[in-house]
Amino acid sequence: MNVAHLLLVVHSGADAAPHLVEADAEHPQLAVMDVAATRGDGIFETLSVVRGHPQALEAHLTRFERSAGMLDLPLPDLGLWRDAIVAVAERLADHDEAWIKTVLSRGVEGQPLPTGWVYGAVSPDFRRERTEGLRVVVLDRGYRSDVAQSSPWLLAGAKTLSYAINRAAVREAQRRGADDVVFMSTDGLLLEGPTSTLIVKRAGRVSTPPAEFGILPGTTQADLFSAAAEWGFEAVVEPLTADELRAADAAWLVSSVRHAAPVRAIDGVAVPVDFALTATMNGFLNARRS
Amino acid sequence: MNVAHLLLVVHSGADAAPHLVEADAEHPQLAVMDVAATRGDGIFETLSVVRGHPQALEAHLTRFERSAGMLDLPLPDLGLWRDAIVAVAERLADHDEAWIKTVLSRGVEGQPLPTGWVYGAVSPDFRRERTEGLRVVVLDRGYRSDVAQSSPWLLAGAKTLSYAINRAAVREAQRRGADDVVFMSTDGLLLEGPTSTLIVKRAGRVSTPPAEFGILPGTTQADLFSAAAEWGFEAVVEPLTADELRAADAAWLVSSVRHAAPVRAIDGVAVPVDFALTATMNGFLNARRS
Repeated sequence: MNVAHLLLVVHSGADAAPHLVEADAEHPQLAVMDVAATRGDGIFETLSVVRGHPQALEAHLTRFERSAGMLDLPLPDLGLWRDAIVAVAERLADHDEAWIKTVLSRGVEGQPLPTGWVYGAVSPDFRRERTEGLRVVVLDRGYRSDVAQSSPWLLAGAKTLSYAINRAAVREAQRRGADDVVFMSTDGLLLEGPTSTLIVKRAGRVSTPPAEFGILPGTTQADLFSAAAEWGFEAVVEPLTADELRAADAAWLVSSVRHAAPVRAIDGVAVPVDFALTATMNGFLNARRS
Repeated sequence: MNVAHLLLVVHSGADAAPHLVEADAEHPQLAVMDVAATRGDGIFETLSVVRGHPQALEAHLTRFERSAGMLDLPLPDLGLWRDAIVAVAERLADHDEAWIKTVLSRGVEGQPLPTGWVYGAVSPDFRRERTEGLRVVVLDRGYRSDVAQSSPWLLAGAKTLSYAINRAAVREAQRRGADDVVFMSTDGLLLEGPTSTLIVKRAGRVSTPPAEFGILPGTTQADLFSAAAEWGFEAVVEPLTADELRAADAAWLVSSVRHAAPVRAIDGVAVPVDFALTATMNGFLNARRS
């Protein structure tokens, strides 16, 4: 049985501090006119929880606040959200791996109060993705790599609830016999996966594309890069092309809950997988307790 | 008092036909894990209702089905959705102008059944927008005009719930002292408003950009174009540039509920408004009973 836990972050007035309310995740909790549902007008984070410990908690809170700013949402009270995440995580302490989603929307249309919630449940089993790896396709994201600077209203790099394109891209990958996607800018630079960060290994160097390209700063990638030197790698944020990905020693899509999934094929062509380093990375990620 | 009406389109099993269930719009009806709310993964239509008559009903149903196809959603049972729209519209027959929103999402994450609903309420007062007009800014949409052909996974031209960008663009317009937006492609062709279709008048000709540019086929624009000959205009679907917009005799952003709103300034520069033709257009739009 996959038990779910839910705390609502209730905003009861413009001047009143929000507070947490216990709720039943199996029952409806959202109005049909909440702009989370009608406009995808809000933000989220997804964290992994290992034996009750939320991982990369501060990095997720920081990014949640950053996304709120990009969407002109009221900045979240991070202390309250931290409390909510920790409380939901504690209820999942019996499980090796669980996940938590935090959501903040602009609220019900025509009303001035945001809607917030923290949801937690047991994670799916990602052993296959973490060991056998992923077949990816490279898909055009339609934007230039400078879109975040030139057109901030396109919200590139904000973690919004408007993820229909991310899901459509994965369906396109599946139609092509693959599992996941690496997005590319119209000027030929690799970006990120629909729900993950790209890491490429070439000789003694691991690389990831710059957040300035309008992509999410990866919390999992950041933790891995902090350990890279220990594993004998230089960690570099730099532009990457599809040719560089295809010629790499190894590559991964890394994310909070699935952790490090090695890339085993690109556009139908098998590429080398570094099984040993993948296991090291996932061991390190799983061992984090904050 | 703004009374709201709600019918849920309940999908109770893969083989069972969906059915309508009366619900209270003032109470929560959606699960927090519905992908409408967590991923913007669904579609919608917004119709106007005049004295209980839904306007452009068949055009909206056709576009709803088209969007479902573009998102690989189960195709909606249009007969049932038509029934639901008509039923909600009838409850709003005491009002000169009301509006209805239909929503179909992929449902609760991990469950195979879509979520649907039809919501109706009394319209806001749009007299000022319809008579005085709108100040617009031209904003880059970040996509090339051929994006719908080259990258269908970007869902350009589908009416999805992922509208965060549309709302961020309007906030950007407000920051610039304007009311609304005309999006432009990266190759310099005008597209549409965030929730409207662009119509430009030059001499004896009214024009609107082609849906092939990855924009929504406008139901209101289609009805206006069907009447254009009667008013002495040739109606043409053709590419338009920002220079052509600025040099036009008149321009409008047209949409289902706000109807025809004339453009009175572009990027801070006043442009001519055709008040007489605007009144004719809105009179025609308001008189529609189907």
